[in-house]
Amino acid sequence: MGAQQVSGGGGACAACKHQRRKCEKGCELANYFPSEKMKEFKAVHKVFGVSNLAKLIKANSTEQARHRAAVTLTWEAEWREKDPVEGCYKEVQMLQCEIQRLREILARCTCGRSDGYRVVDYSNGYWGLGGGVVILKNNEQQVLVNGMSAWNQMM
Amino acid sequence: MGAQQVSGGGGACAACKHQRRKCEKGCELANYFPSEKMKEFKAVHKVFGVSNLAKLIKANSTEQARHRAAVTLTWEAEWREKDPVEGCYKEVQMLQCEIQRLREILARCTCGRSDGYRVVDYSNGYWGLGGGVVILKNNEQQVLVNGMSAWNQMM
Repeated sequence: MGAQQVSGGGGACAACKHQRRKCEKGCELANYFPSEKMKEFKAVHKVFGVSNLAKLIKANSTEQARHRAAVTLTWEAEWREKDPVEGCYKEVQMLQCEIQRLREILARCTCGRSDGYRVVDYSNGYWGLGGGVVILKNNEQQVLVNGMSAWNQMM
Repeated sequence: MGAQQVSGGGGACAACKHQRRKCEKGCELANYFPSEKMKEFKAVHKVFGVSNLAKLIKANSTEQARHRAAVTLTWEAEWREKDPVEGCYKEVQMLQCEIQRLREILARCTCGRSDGYRVVDYSNGYWGLGGGVVILKNNEQQVLVNGMSAWNQMM
């Protein structure tokens, strides 16, 4: 992931190849969409369009940030191709399901603890709190786990 | 979230207002970006451009799907405004951190169980598996938790 210009020589970048134009030295998309990334370029082209894409990448000041922006924009575009309604929000929903599943397991797996400690999910905002996990000892609220430190102290 | 046309009458929709044009009856963005959604429209306009936006919304066949596409596209655009490098992938990263945190708590909170059951995180693919959580009894692997059914049987 260096800052070298990958095209401008023999092979046109995916952007120029797709648009059937000569890939000039200094082509602003060649670094992010070399010729082998045609599939990725087609996806971002369809979702953002070339001029928006170039603008969104150039909005970042370092070469590393621009590369990373190209990667995350490609990820968004590929999700939108797969799911035209939810796009990459689908991945968020899948992760939210996994969090819900882990909270349910967590709430159950502490039932058998011999020391009386129990972890209870309150992701629906029970107790007027914003959501998360609470630790009870003998059914009385002990401490909120916001990070591992409180839990580590207890264990 | 009905299918009624919200503009074409007195007030121009956010898209037409932003582009300083008359909002004609049948304006294809008026349903999704009424006049009060100017902030949201500016974000999607900046990230996708108007013609791409309209194309991405129209790619869906039902009015409900088109509305939902407008919502998820707005969510993507607002994240890209906040974070030009990661965009909405930032939210994925935050959820992945929460999953990691829950797995760590889960692995620890089962240490005190009197029945010998223990939950171990193997999200790094230990045991040649794809990642997830494993239940051990007296340090021997018992069952994979892929959903709650196996766990429910055990508990």
